[in-house]
Formats: sequence, C-alpha cells, structure tokens
Amino acid sequence: MANINDYIENNKDRFLNELLDLLRIPSVSADSKFKGDVLKAAEFIHGKLLEAGADIVEICPTGGHPIVYGEKIIDAKLPTVLVYGHYDVQPADPYELWDSPPFEPVIKTTEIHPEGAIFARGACDDKGQVYMHIKAFEAMMKTDTLACNIKFLIEGEEEVGSDHLGIFLEENKEKLAADIVLVSDTGIIANDVPSITVGLRGLSYVQVEVTGPNRDLHSGLYGGAVPNPINVLAEMIASLKDENKKINIPGFYADVIELSADERAAMALAPFDEEEYKKSIGLSATEGEAGYTSMERSSIRPTLDVNGIWGGYIGEGAKTVIASKAYAKISMRLVPNQDPDKITKLFQDHFTSIAPPSVKVKVIPHHGGKPAVTPTDSPAYIAAAKAMETTFGKVPVPFRGGGSIPIVALFEQTLGLKTVLMGFGLDSDAIHSPNEHYGVFNYFKGIETIPLFFKNFAELND
Amino acid sequence: MANINDYIENNKDRFLNELLDLLRIPSVSADSKFKGDVLKAAEFIHGKLLEAGADIVEICPTGGHPIVYGEKIIDAKLPTVLVYGHYDVQPADPYELWDSPPFEPVIKTTEIHPEGAIFARGACDDKGQVYMHIKAFEAMMKTDTLACNIKFLIEGEEEVGSDHLGIFLEENKEKLAADIVLVSDTGIIANDVPSITVGLRGLSYVQVEVTGPNRDLHSGLYGGAVPNPINVLAEMIASLKDENKKINIPGFYADVIELSADERAAMALAPFDEEEYKKSIGLSATEGEAGYTSMERSSIRPTLDVNGIWGGYIGEGAKTVIASKAYAKISMRLVPNQDPDKITKLFQDHFTSIAPPSVKVKVIPHHGGKPAVTPTDSPAYIAAAKAMETTFGKVPVPFRGGGSIPIVALFEQTLGLKTVLMGFGLDSDAIHSPNEHYGVFNYFKGIETIPLFFKNFAELND
Repeated sequence: MANINDYIENNKDRFLNELLDLLRIPSVSADSKFKGDVLKAAEFIHGKLLEAGADIVEICPTGGHPIVYGEKIIDAKLPTVLVYGHYDVQPADPYELWDSPPFEPVIKTTEIHPEGAIFARGACDDKGQVYMHIKAFEAMMKTDTLACNIKFLIEGEEEVGSDHLGIFLEENKEKLAADIVLVSDTGIIANDVPSITVGLRGLSYVQVEVTGPNRDLHSGLYGGAVPNPINVLAEMIASLKDENKKINIPGFYADVIELSADERAAMALAPFDEEEYKKSIGLSATEGEAGYTSMERSSIRPTLDVNGIWGGYIGEGAKTVIASKAYAKISMRLVPNQDPDKITKLFQDHFTSIAPPSVKVKVIPHHGGKPAVTPTDSPAYIAAAKAMETTFGKVPVPFRGGGSIPIVALFEQTLGLKTVLMGFGLDSDAIHSPNEHYGVFNYFKGIETIPLFFKNFAELND
Repeated sequence: MANINDYIENNKDRFLNELLDLLRIPSVSADSKFKGDVLKAAEFIHGKLLEAGADIVEICPTGGHPIVYGEKIIDAKLPTVLVYGHYDVQPADPYELWDSPPFEPVIKTTEIHPEGAIFARGACDDKGQVYMHIKAFEAMMKTDTLACNIKFLIEGEEEVGSDHLGIFLEENKEKLAADIVLVSDTGIIANDVPSITVGLRGLSYVQVEVTGPNRDLHSGLYGGAVPNPINVLAEMIASLKDENKKINIPGFYADVIELSADERAAMALAPFDEEEYKKSIGLSATEGEAGYTSMERSSIRPTLDVNGIWGGYIGEGAKTVIASKAYAKISMRLVPNQDPDKITKLFQDHFTSIAPPSVKVKVIPHHGGKPAVTPTDSPAYIAAAKAMETTFGKVPVPFRGGGSIPIVALFEQTLGLKTVLMGFGLDSDAIHSPNEHYGVFNYFKGIETIPLFFKNFAELND
C-alpha cells in the first residue's frame, strides 16, 4: 500500500490542522449552554465525510444531540465495517488547572510524546481518534484502496450516556447492517507496547440529594440539635465501603464472575510498574480493594467513586451555616455479568434504607452502561492485531480496560454486532482531566493502521 | 419618659427608612469584592452617629475593615455604657433561595410578625439591632434624657472572626474605658416571652483539604486503584462522631463542665415545644448527642458541623472524574471552659492522624471565639431585665444561647468589662440564611427599651 502511505505523508499538515479546527469547537454535551457548539461539531463532521468521498451523509436529529451518519457502499458482496465514534466532549472545568485554554489547541512536546502532543479537550477522547477514521477513509478513497463497505455512526451524547443511541439503532437496523463495529475510543499500553482492549467495565451513575432542615440554619442557634445534611451525607458515603474497601451494598458482588488464578497470572504478565504508576499521578500509596493488585482494581473489579460533592458555604472565608441540602454524584464501574439497571436499583434501595429518619433522600439515576468482553479469535480481532503488528512492529497485547463504552453492549444487543476496540490513546493522555492531550505519533499511527484493518478484514472474509 | 416615647412615635417612619438605606449596602466582610461596600456602611454609621448628637465620631482603620467609634460624654461622674455592634453581614448566597433580593429590603407580614418584618441580609444580624441603638441615642439626645455617658464601637469584621478587634481594644484601652458593654446581637424566646442571653457558645472554625492524585483522573481508567479524596474526606468526617453523636476527637470533652441535674431542670422550664421546633424547620425528627434534649444540644453542649463541602464535578449532568482535591469547612461550637485554640489544635492533630497514608491533608484554622457566661445579679443585668419588664410587661427569662459572640470574652479579657446581651431577634428570623428578616415590632421594641436600660443603669449606679 505504498500509494496510500504516500498520500498520508503528503497530507499530514492538513490532517493535523483540520483536527485542530474540530478541537476549537467546544462541543460539551453535558452542559446545555454549549448546545449550539455541539451542533457545529456535527456539521463539521458531516462536511468532512462528504469531502472525503461518502455517498450519503446525514445529520440525524434525536431527542438530544444529533447523530452523524455516513456511508460508502462499494460492493454489496464485500463485508461492511460500521465505524463508531463521538464528536462530543467532557466538560472542561476546572478551567484554571489547564496550562492553555481547553478549546484553543496547542502542540507541545512531553517526555512521553517527544514528537509533540495536541493539548485540548477532546484531543484524545474522542475527536482525535474519530478524526483518524475520517482521514483514513479519505486516504483509501483518494487512492482507490477501500477494501470493505464503510458506514459511519458518529454521535454527540457519548459523554452523557448515549441516551438516544439505543432508539436510533432500533429504528435504523437495516441502514446500519454491517459485519463488525470498529471503534477507536480506547488506548494502547504504551507507544512501544501496542494493545487491543478486549474487556470494558460497565457503569452505573447516580446523583444523590440529602435534605435536612427546610432552609439554611445558623449553626450557633441550631447546631447539635438538627441533622446536618452534609455530615449525614458523609456518613452515608463512608458506610458504602467496609475496612477492606469492599462495597457494602447488599447483592453488589452477586453477579461478578471471579477470574481464575490462571487468568490473573496471565494478566500480571502485562507490563506494569507500581512505582511508575504512583509517580505518574503523584501518590505515595495506592488504595483499593484488599486482595487485588492496582491493575486488577482498575480493570477486573467493580468500584464505587464519588465524582462530585457539594453543599453549604463554599465561598471565601467562614460562614457558620447548616445547609438545608447536600449533594453528591456517585458512579460505580461494573465488570462482566453485572447489570447496570440492577446495580442502580440496588444502590437506590440501599442508599434510601440507610438514611437516618431525620433526613429525606433522593437518588436520581443518571446513566448506565453494560460491561463487555470481546473475543480474541474472531476475524475482526485478527484483522486489527495484524494491522497493528504491521505498523508497530509488535504483536498487540489483548488487554482488559477499566473504562466504560456502554455502546459495545448496545451494538451486540440491538444490531447483533461484535465490536473491535482498536484505540490509540495512552492512559497518561489525561482524558476527562485538565490538559487532555493526544500524541501526534498516535494520531498518524492510527491513520496508517486503519486502512490495514480494512484490507485484512476483507481478506479474512473472502 | 413620655417625652421620649412621643419622639420615637413621631419619627417611626424615618427610623425605619434609614435602616432600609443601611440594609441596601451589601457590606459582606467575608468576600473581598464587597470591600468598598463595607467601607460605605462604616461611613453611613459614622454620619448617623454625628447627626444623632455624638461629640466625637471616627472611622478607625484596622488591618482589615474599619471600626466606627463614637462618643457622647455628658458628665465624667456618670457611668459609661460601651455599645458594641457590627455593620458587616454574612454572605447572602445562595441567592436563588431568597424570595426577594437580599440587598433590596422589603417589608412583609408573616405568621410570627403580623406587624411586618424587614426582609434583607443583615436585617436582624446585626444592622437592624445596631441601628436601634443609634436611634435610641438620637431620641435620648433630642429629648435631653441621656442618663449615662455613651461610647459606640461598631465593627466591620464580626462575621469573619473580629480579627483586628483585639489589637484595637489593646491599643485604645483608655478611650474605651466604661462600666459595662451593651450588645444587641442575640434574641428573645418569643415576642411574648422576653429573655436575656446569659451564656454563649464559643467557636473553632477550620477549613480542611484532602489531596489524592496530583490531577483529576478518569474514573474508568483509575477508579478502584487510587484514593478518591472525596470518599476519603467523607470517611474522615464520618469518623468524627460515634453512633451516639459524641465527638470522637480525643480530649474534646475534657474541659466541658457538666451542668448539675438542678441546672438542667431549671433550663427545662423555659418554654420549648419540640413539635413546634421540628415544624418550624421542616423536620420529621431531630438528631443529636444521645442523652440530651434539643434545647440542651443547641446551647449547653459542644457540637461539630460541616458548614460547607466541595470537590469534583458539580455542574449539570455526569462527569466520570476522580478529583485531585476535596474540601470542607468545619466548625465546632464550644461551651464554657473549652478553649478554642486548644480545640483547634486537638482537631488539627486528630484530623491529620486519621488520614490514610495515600492522601495528604491540610487543616487551616479560620477563626475562633471563647464561650461565655454572664451573671444575673449584676446592676447591668438588673437594669436590662427591668427595662424589658417595662416594655414587654413580663420579667425576661435568663437564657443560654447556642451561638457565639467571641467579643464577650475579648471585652472581659482586654478591657475587664462585663457584657449585657440584650438582643431582640427571634430564632426564626433566619439569620445567616436566605430570607433573613427582623420584625418591625422588635425593631421599635428595642428602640423603646434601650433608653430605659440607660435610665435604670444610672439609677442603680447612683
């Protein structure tokens, strides 16, 4: 494929600059004040798919943010690859912790990225990775090397739970018919240790609200005699884990399939340096469920984390107030065989049951996603592994990740399709954090690898 | 004193309108963006003291907000009353919970205030109460009935711990020489149950900060393996009280003097209706230290309350983040014989000692105040009790309050002066809360009662 490699090489500057343009659009799906920008990002994707050579491209309205659909059918007899990604991004706050503004991308070298990395919200998750597919598609079209039919499904609600994707899949089963889903929204272990994600954790996300008195009270006049909703919330949260950091919700672990000793031993072979891990995030000690390693705790074990908490006076100085209400956002990562709806219900029942009689408690489910494990012996996995072996010069490691891509379960359930998670990010890319970035090396490595996947997949299906 | 009563009656509208003007100045001492308004309030007080007839009035600079000093010496042989109050107010947020803007006072009737109440931040605490003294002084001056020398000390930092008052008292001992301090910054039990506060709780106030990883992390990639500072903070806060709601800090109760059974029995005679209490603040159950009544818990027992908590993502929607830091503001109300500096140190040592090795903890002391009890057999108490008996038609109840006025201990320590706490607010006036208000009845009752205190105090010292 010398031809396509030349094409990529000759267009690198433009490929990079177009991504920077996309990153300048603050398409934060969680915050309604960015609604117009989310639509702008959808229109950008729409335009680029058309330019690249898609036959049909549509901005499909949903009950929330729109879905961009595109396709290029070259031969009904060839296999079809459905490329999924998302053009929405996580909120960028706290803004003050960014070294450069989140929606003004800059390229800087880092220790891990000596060839430079693009710093911007969404650089890695998922605009940078989704745009690799659009540019790989362009390269295949312009060099006449597209080996499969291709369909694009690029949504704008991944960061808020893909609420309207399920209905869209249901209503467009025929249109979306394919042989495999290809997604780049995960990472590799290191730039010299390629890997493919074969497992993902699911997610249950709730917001809780504890109400004590019906108005804020003076802590001198009332303190000691009335329930303080912040203290109560802290006590309730604390009680959710025992001294071994096991989650105390009855039934929480009931459906978890424990890995065998052999499986755990195999997992332990993946390169992982605990000291390096601690150093990279400034910790003197890690912390987690007793009896498991850090790598296991963050991949094969379910978790419970408070993602946000607020209540009372949080301004400058001191205010002696007992708040009327306290709030927290709490999420649970789930492992294969745990069901997010069931876990959300268990949480709701338990959290309500442990509330002292002096307060009122509300639990509002936000969104959930099913955990997933993908097989390593399918043609699609082999096509991806061979593509990476070619471009990285090493066989990729099959790896179980800690994050959640709920759509993997959704595709299986609604469309009956398996997914290959061929992502090119790094854990250190700070996705969902200030100073998110994506390596220039990784961006172009992705653009080079993707056409090989199409080629291999077509051959294996021949 | 028919003359002075006529004067007050004839000037009621102006007395009220002037207070509304003062309430329109947002003199929030805790927030530096209101610095200019705090000064404006000082200038307002300065002008009104001059108009009322003070000989000397000064705006005295301090290391923080200024102190307004004023005096009228009529005869060196007469006793001198030092009137203390504060013109600064608590922050008004959360603004959205106010029915009308906090710095645009309105008068509305309520069930408890059929004659109307003034709704505004500071209406009761303490602008409304301090302004009663200025108008009572004016009335005494204009009717030539001032029976004692009078000095005014109106500060602008009461709501942030009176940080510069101690130095000011030290440096102005001679100027401030007096026989008694008179303060209206407390309340009465009800408009038909007058009372005088004879005990106050002290205060220790700290801010805590828990740091986990050195940056916000993606909860999917890292969740389960790293300390989540919000979960850790919740666990640390929860551990500060045991199942009987006793405070778990070693040595916390060491200096508390337990009341005798007789003292507790006497206290239980004060009118208090638990059902009414719960109803007034919308609770189905009260909560507090085992073995004590609600009234005891909020007055003679020390407490620990979280006044504010924050960390992680608190915006709209869901963000799957593990925060780098979590914060809380925590205050402890102290009872006689507990020392705020000692308690702050105990808290600091304990809170640091219970932190798990995976996090870093900072404890920043904000401000403190000593608890106080005042005698009921002094001429000043008797003068106040008789004045209230005249205007209310009932002997006031001596009452131990739950709030803190740290300056009471400061006056005793620095100037050797006792304080009389003759306040006219109600617990239901929502001080420090949205919709703070002050009864029009209470405002004028104060203006009528204060001159009687001066008359009685002069006679008792004759």
